[in-house]
This record gives sequence, structure tokens and C-alpha cells, in this order.
Amino acid sequence: MEINGVEIEDTFAEAFDILVSRVLITAETRNLAKVAATEATGYGTSVIGCPAEAGIDCYVPPEETPDGRPGYVIMICNMNKDKLDHEVMERIAMCVLTAATTAVFDALDDADEKLKTGAKLRYFGDGFEKKLEVDGRTVYSIPIMSGDFLIEDELGMKKGVAGGNFFIMSENQPSALIAAEAAVFAIENIANTITPFPGGIVASGSKVGSKYKFLTASTNEKMAVTLKDEVEDSEVPADVNGIYEIVIDGADEEVVKEAMKVGIEAAVKVPGVLKISAGNFGGNLGAYKINLHELF
Amino acid sequence: MEINGVEIEDTFAEAFDILVSRVLITAETRNLAKVAATEATGYGTSVIGCPAEAGIDCYVPPEETPDGRPGYVIMICNMNKDKLDHEVMERIAMCVLTAATTAVFDALDDADEKLKTGAKLRYFGDGFEKKLEVDGRTVYSIPIMSGDFLIEDELGMKKGVAGGNFFIMSENQPSALIAAEAAVFAIENIANTITPFPGGIVASGSKVGSKYKFLTASTNEKMAVTLKDEVEDSEVPADVNGIYEIVIDGADEEVVKEAMKVGIEAAVKVPGVLKISAGNFGGNLGAYKINLHELF
Amino acid sequence: MEINGVEIEDTFAEAFDILVSRVLITAETRNLAKVAATEATGYGTSVIGCPAEAGIDCYVPPEETPDGRPGYVIMICNMNKDKLDHEVMERIAMCVLTAATTAVFDALDDADEKLKTGAKLRYFGDGFEKKLEVDGRTVYSIPIMSGDFLIEDELGMKKGVAGGNFFIMSENQPSALIAAEAAVFAIENIANTITPFPGGIVASGSKVGSKYKFLTASTNEKMAVTLKDEVEDSEVPADVNGIYEIVIDGADEEVVKEAMKVGIEAAVKVPGVLKISAGNFGGNLGAYKINLHELF
Amino acid sequence: MEINGVEIEDTFAEAFDILVSRVLITAETRNLAKVAATEATGYGTSVIGCPAEAGIDCYVPPEETPDGRPGYVIMICNMNKDKLDHEVMERIAMCVLTAATTAVFDALDDADEKLKTGAKLRYFGDGFEKKLEVDGRTVYSIPIMSGDFLIEDELGMKKGVAGGNFFIMSENQPSALIAAEAAVFAIENIANTITPFPGGIVASGSKVGSKYKFLTASTNEKMAVTLKDEVEDSEVPADVNGIYEIVIDGADEEVVKEAMKVGIEAAVKVPGVLKISAGNFGGNLGAYKINLHELF
Repeated sequence: MEINGVEIEDTFAEAFDILVSRVLITAETRNLAKVAATEATGYGTSVIGCPAEAGIDCYVPPEETPDGRPGYVIMICNMNKDKLDHEVMERIAMCVLTAATTAVFDALDDADEKLKTGAKLRYFGDGFEKKLEVDGRTVYSIPIMSGDFLIEDELGMKKGVAGGNFFIMSENQPSALIAAEAAVFAIENIANTITPFPGGIVASGSKVGSKYKFLTASTNEKMAVTLKDEVEDSEVPADVNGIYEIVIDGADEEVVKEAMKVGIEAAVKVPGVLKISAGNFGGNLGAYKINLHELF
Repeated sequence: MEINGVEIEDTFAEAFDILVSRVLITAETRNLAKVAATEATGYGTSVIGCPAEAGIDCYVPPEETPDGRPGYVIMICNMNKDKLDHEVMERIAMCVLTAATTAVFDALDDADEKLKTGAKLRYFGDGFEKKLEVDGRTVYSIPIMSGDFLIEDELGMKKGVAGGNFFIMSENQPSALIAAEAAVFAIENIANTITPFPGGIVASGSKVGSKYKFLTASTNEKMAVTLKDEVEDSEVPADVNGIYEIVIDGADEEVVKEAMKVGIEAAVKVPGVLKISAGNFGGNLGAYKINLHELF
Repeated sequence: MEINGVEIEDTFAEAFDILVSRVLITAETRNLAKVAATEATGYGTSVIGCPAEAGIDCYVPPEETPDGRPGYVIMICNMNKDKLDHEVMERIAMCVLTAATTAVFDALDDADEKLKTGAKLRYFGDGFEKKLEVDGRTVYSIPIMSGDFLIEDELGMKKGVAGGNFFIMSENQPSALIAAEAAVFAIENIANTITPFPGGIVASGSKVGSKYKFLTASTNEKMAVTLKDEVEDSEVPADVNGIYEIVIDGADEEVVKEAMKVGIEAAVKVPGVLKISAGNFGGNLGAYKINLHELF
Repeated sequence: MEINGVEIEDTFAEAFDILVSRVLITAETRNLAKVAATEATGYGTSVIGCPAEAGIDCYVPPEETPDGRPGYVIMICNMNKDKLDHEVMERIAMCVLTAATTAVFDALDDADEKLKTGAKLRYFGDGFEKKLEVDGRTVYSIPIMSGDFLIEDELGMKKGVAGGNFFIMSENQPSALIAAEAAVFAIENIANTITPFPGGIVASGSKVGSKYKFLTASTNEKMAVTLKDEVEDSEVPADVNGIYEIVIDGADEEVVKEAMKVGIEAAVKVPGVLKISAGNFGGNLGAYKINLHELF
């Protein structure tokens, strides 16, 4: 299969179950909301080494938010419910409550369960907190140094999908990089998804295990462009010298598929892109197999 | 004491010992370096609830970096050496190694000790890693998907200072906010310091303890502007309706003092600012007492 | 009339006829489109001294553009048709054709007339240009150094409205400034409008005439906050120390009204804002009188 | 000659005399200064079709500016003295005076002559303007709506150099584009220079004349990558599919040379770059011939 002259490999992305929360951060200006959302979602590329997977989903203009102020929706994800609960609490308490002029609202449709983040964080008010209703929602107002911080009583959580992905293979690294940027800009517009890696782009791949006994994961040498002539069973085509991966977490399989689709369509428009592939572990580890050819 | 007509309270900021690492992240373009630096320093406002205190120190133009590419210096801080070691490793492995076109170099002068971050991370190369010399430094080259990731063998660590601070008190919240932004922009230019909170600004203050027994810290109601008429011993002056705090971590006491000085000088230029104060715990907890009046 | 406790003065904004073009600039990535749109709309605050009034209207995600790439819609306005024609041509030829990876499409509904911008610019191709159809539009492809530049044959023009406006009056300058920023972020979401001044905000007002005979316009001292005690008939309320104006150009009166409405609603949410007013010349100069009270 | 394996062609950039002004715009925050500087330098790529060549030179931290606030230095250039005078006046009056919290200072060393911009603009104060001294400079304070606008009495002007340039030729367009971005980031650090095109990068080249009699300039088909197989005497090497040009204006020949040097050194680090060349007109039109090989 080819799109715009670029080969789409007949393979699948293997994706996993993950628990997802989706939170709206509003502020007095768009920039202030962005600052809080960025701090709260940092250090959140992969649960392999980060305490959560996190990212900015989308911007919400003032007329569409509960308090009529501009905001950004973020997603925070973890396989483990207690860890997710902890991360949502700490990322909001340390990175949003402390940020100028912010408020926090639930932004998840069809929640499986509710986290009591607001209900717990209100105690920080030390008795000075107040219960309010904002736009039909139960909200706590917590007096802090600079004014009052508002947070919704409960924040939704649901089973979502982690690790939707595709590889962009180009004749050189800058081509793969700009194609990856184009893909991230396209995915940005698909609500309920994030691309949690830095700038939405993954520069390194890993395999399970290593020749060093103390290491459980190491570089995937078969996909490393500078090793293609050195590694016997390299999977890097001869004319490929740059590879980046896009990893997508989403609220359900459908949005992850949609994000993969628009991301690939954007990537293949960039000169120098030769092939699109996807990452899987043979199909036995993850709950979801997303076939590239079936996206189109 | 007054500067530009603004009262500088005769008080001191109480600051603490902390262990500091300082790392240069370079990349193919300035924007790519910023993306990696931002991801690596997120979720890093305060060790009270974050795994580290972290922030971007400064930009370094290409002609001043070991590999001749533009870069950002970040600082990662923790009171505990093992935790710092862990955070430096994971934030680099998960947020910089995975970011497009990056390399990592030590950027700390006068290190007390060295972290073996590069020496350990090289094993991710699974035997394909190479030892190089770049600009007189020992560096490992690790083949990853998109090319080769370079990281210096050892990264310096030293005893620094956390919690340098001052309060900006204004007749309303927007005045305190713009004064805080002006302060952060001024501090940005003092090398070896970071302002780890979101956008460099702290919107909430806390006190030790709470009326709720299960809580060890809670809002500092004496400094909360919306409670000034409700709380008997409020420390908010009658005409003050907006307060933000700037918190500074630095490589030594001198740079923290310099950052406080230029930050205050910038803040008092903004209309509506009435008073500058500082936060302390009576002087018994922290190793450093930085008197505001002695800064000028 | 009060909104959120802020007085809305019973007055009107006087607005004018202007000719409006509305153009979509797409590029390989969102950032590249923004760079071109920013250059093409600079030096475009007011036709009093600039060759055009110009600004960025809105972002358009890839799935909604003719070539499936991300883009920004800009508006370029002038009272005079020949000048508008010249400005659209030169701003595209000098600032978009020269920008990396861009293409240009018409983005105006209900055009009164068409500018032959693409039809004329194609000759720059010196015979190497080609006529194509993209998404049902007639487009010229012009070979340039870096690849092919695409521009639609004709770009729409219509009679629109210039000078929709309101004043934000605050107890100090930072409050008026952040309220103005909040207003601009809200207006950003109203399609078919721009706020052409720097950052969307106007810091200075002018009156017709001057005590200096050689000057046809000068500062409006009655609205200058630092002159309120010096000028006898100052219109600055005693408690107001900061004023900014928002000026809006739009494709028709309805969108200008909508922009004024959401802008005012955003502004009055900011602490320290005391009053909203609007600018007019007695109602005899402009074609439109937009009453503030009738907006709500 | 080769640098980093990239061929540096043995040719020269032909540059021209131009009149240069260099102006510092300060503001309450770095972002506000950037907004004004961006608006004032827009629509300023080339005097072929723009009323001036203009761009942001560099950021200046608060401790290095006359009023202790952060600022950006811009350059505005034109071959003709009257036109330069007009452009400096209008770009400041319309795009800086109207921008929030700004002030304007001369930033040119070794001026040949002074423009009376401040001395003339002060009349806008309609008699309410005041003469002040700021940091040893004669400055006018003009009361405007939001406060007082400060501008230095005289702004320096001198004979500088326009059109320093080099071409980046890559195996594909994204490689040339990222190399161009890397070059612009490197040049950013050379004071007294600007790269006036959008994002600092030129996507299109032109030749004098055209097959259409009414056109005095047209696309340079010999340098157009998509025409390399169609045009008989194409100067595009067979393996080159992406070309961008960097154009530099500077206060003197030395800084233009320095900018070309660091720009080329940055560009050749990017994968896929095959060749660096430069643009000239045989050496008979411009006052400066800057040989690429002599830069290193």
C-alpha cells in the first residue's frame, strides 16, 4: 500500500490498556493556562521511567469552558489506579494550584470511575475552603496567597489505550523530523489523544533485554539507522537514514486510530519520507492490534 | 527601605541546602533543545510533592557549546543524593535521550562530586556504544533509532541553595502577576539559578500543619489575600489584593542573592506594587538567612 | 449597566467601512505557517500610518484546508481598492512566496469582488508556472528555489468593518493590560475578525488636530491616565490609572459585534477592571454605531 | 573546500550599501518587548517590494538597558535616507508607541548621522510632552492613554551592508530547511545583524528580467530544484532537491562576514546538506564581494 508515493508497511501497532484522566486547566489568559499545563505534564513520556504518561490534549476557548476563561485540556495516564490517583493529585497540587490564576475541571466523557482529587485537595484550605457550584458542577474554592483556586470535586478516570504508534522512515534525519512535526500538528487536532514524548516525537527505540545482565531494556539496534550496515538483521531499509516514532495515548481505540491516520497522512506529505511502519511485540503483549492498512 | 517608592520589608528569606546538578542539552536547533529541556524539567516545582526541583537556567549559543550546537542549561535539584542521581538519570533517559537530535554535557563549575549518569546510560547502547572525546570531554555515543545520542561520562553535582525567595504584594492580582513575570525575566539572565515553579511564579503559600490531623501542610491563611478580613492575624496589608512569590534555587548563596536583587529591582518598576517581603520560618530551619535590605 | 461588577458605559463604538481580503496560508508545519502569517501582517496596525491594517484571524487544522496542511488565515484591509490590491500582492509576494513551504488560498466567503493576485503573481514563474486544480480551486504552481509555490488564481475582497473598539479602564496599568490580553484571547476565537494592533492591544489614543499647526493628529489628552489631574476636562475617572483599547476589524458588522461582546466579557473577569467604554467621534464620521449595552 | 564533509563552493556573495538604523525597544516584560519588535519589523523582507528591510537583532537583558527593563534591538534599513527616516518614524509611531508599556532608545554605535525621530514624535504629545534625561540620554516622555511613552531624542543611522548571503543545498527540502533554521539560530547571536526574511529564511530566488515584457524580475529557474531536469543550464546539482538561502543585513562588512561564517558552520552540521554556495551578480552591482573560502 502506498499513500502519496510512500510505502505503508503491512503491519500493526500493538497498544496497551492504560488508565486515563482528562483534566481542563483554565486561567486568566491562554498563556497562563499553557504554563500550568506544560509544567503539569512534564517528565511524563513513558511509564517505563516516568511517574506517568502525560501531555496537552487541546486548547479550549473561553466560551466553551465552565468558568468562561481560556484553558488547556491535559491527559495524565498510568497503568495502575493508585499511581494514577497519586499523579493526578500531585501534578495538580504542585504544578497547577501553584500556578497563577488557574482553575481545574473534569474533562472526561464516559468516565468509568471518579478520582476524589478535588474532594481531597480542598483540605489544603485548612477550613477556609468553600463549596460552590460552577456551571452545574460541584467545585471547591481554596483561598491561596494570590486569590482563590477552584477545583472540581471529582475528576473522571477511564480505561484508555496507550502506545498507539507509527514509524516515519526517511532518506535523512531532517526529513523524518519535519514529517514527525507535521504528524504531531495533525494529531493535535484529535481530541482525547496526546503524544506524550518531547514535542510529541520519539527519537529512540528500545527492545526487551540486553547483553548486559543488569539491564532489562536496551537500544533496538535493528531499528538504529547508524547501525544498519553493522547489524546483520537490521530492519532499516538501505536508503533510510532517519527514523522517528510517534506514540499516541488516547481515551479509546477509535481516537488512537484516528490520530494514527491523520498523523500518517501528514507525514507522507513531507519530501524524503520513504516508508511508514509500526511497532509491535508480535501481538502477544498488548490488548490492541491496530493494522496500518485498515486505517485508510 | 524603599526602592522606586515600594517598601522593602526588613526581613529575610530563609533558604536551605540542596544538591544541584547542572546539565547542558544541545540540539540541532534552538527550538529542539528547548523542547527537551522543558520536558526534562517539568513536574519539578518543589520536592514537597515533586520528585525533584528543576528548571531551565539559560540559553547557550552554538559557539559556546562543546558540540557547536545551540543548547539550554537545566538544573535538577534534590536534598537527597540518591534521589538526585535517580532523577538526573531518569529525566535524561526518558526526556532527553528520547528527544530529537539532543546531546548532554556537564555544565557545573566547581562540582563537589560526579554522577556517573553517562557512564551508566551508555549500557543502553547494548554494546554498540562508543567512547569519544568531544571538546576535551569524555563522551559516550549511543546509537538510537534516529541517529547517535551523545552524553558526557560524568555530570557534576554540588551543594547549592534552595528556597531563596521574595513576595510581591500589589494593590491587585494583575499587578503582582506582571511584576512577578518581570522579576522572572530579570532572573533568567543570572546564570546558575532557576525559578522552578510554573512560569517561575508561585501562586500559593503553605504553612506547616493543619486543623485536619491527616494533613502536614496547608494554605498559609495569613498570607491569603481573600482572607485578609476574615483571618484575625492576617499579614496581608489592607491595601494589598494580590501576592505572588518568586522562589529561586541556585548553585551557591551568591547567585541566589543576585537573583533576588535583580528580581526585586524588576518587580518594583511595575505600577501597583506596594511592598516586597520574604518568607522564612523564624530562621531555625534553613542554613541561609538572606536579608532583603542587605541585597541593595 | 454592570457585568461582573464592572460598569459598562452607555456609549457606542463608531466603526467604518473598509475593504477586506481574507487569505489562508498553509505550510508543512504549523510553525512555518505562523512565521509567514506573522511577517505578512506586520507593520499593519492602522492605515493612518501603515500601508494596511492586517492581522492573523485564526488557525486552521490540516483536515480543513485545501491542501491538507496546517494553516493560518490572515486578513489584510484598506479603505482604497487599489491600495488593498497592492498590499495583498506585495505582502504575499514578499512575505509568503519567500517563506518556507507555503501555499496561499482564498478564505473569504461572500466576496464582493475578486483580486487577481494569483493570476498576476504566476508570471513570476517566467513561463515555468503551471495551472492546477486543488480541492476544486484553480491554483498556479510557481517553481521557486526550494520547490513549488502554490497560489489560488483569485482572492476574494469585500466591504467589511474597521474600528470596532472598546476601552478597558482599570485601577492600574497591569490590570488593564491583562484584561486586554484576556480580551484578545477571547476574540481570537471569533472567525472573520482581527485585532490589528501589536498583540491586539492599543496603548495610545489620538484626537484629530493639535496645538502644533503642522500636526493633523495628536495624543488624546482627555484619555491619558497620567494627565488626569492636569487636564481640566479629563475623561479618566479618578480611580482609573490604566487604560488600553481593543480595536477590531471584521468581515461584517455582526462578527465585529460578537468580537466586542466576548472581548468585554473576558476583560471584566480580571481583578482591578473598573469600567468599559468605547470610542467614537460623535457618530458623524463612521458608518456604524455599535452600542455597548445592545451587545448583551 | 569542505567543512564537515560539505562542499563550500569557491564563489562570493555580492552585497550592497544600505542605510541602517538600530533601535532598542524596552517594555515591562520580555514578551511585551517582543510583541512590539515583531510588529515593527514585519512586512520588511526586501526593499524590492517592502517599504524597508527590518528584523530583530538581539535580546537585551534588563541590567543592560537604559531603563532597566528587558528589550529587543531591531534594525530598520533602506537604501534611501528619506525613506529610512519615514520608515523609522512610522514603524515606531504605529507599532511601538501603540504597543503596551514600551520605550525606544538609540542602539547604534558609530552613527554617521542622527535621525530626529524622537524630536519629531514628541509633538504627538501636543504640548504635554516632557524632556527627561534617562541614563545620560535626552529622552521625551509623551503621555498616552495607558501611561507615558519614552523615546530618545535622536536615533543613529549609518552606512551598512545589505544582502550578505549563502545558499544551503541539500538532498531534500527538509534537510535544507532545518539547516537554514540552524544557521538562523547561530546568526541570532551576532550583534548588529539581522536576517530579514520570514523566520530568517529565503525560499525563492529571482533573476533580473523575464520573458514577460511587463516584468522586471522573475524566478531564477537555474536555481529552482523542481526545474533541474527541465532547464538546460540548471545550476542545481543532480543530487540536490532542496535549497534555501540566508540573507543578512548588518551594520558593517565585518559582522556580515561573521554572521555568514557562523551560519554556514551551523548549516553543514545538519544531515543531508551537500553544498554551500552564494549569490552574486558577477560582482559589478554590489560594493562588497564576500568570498566564502576567505571566511574560514
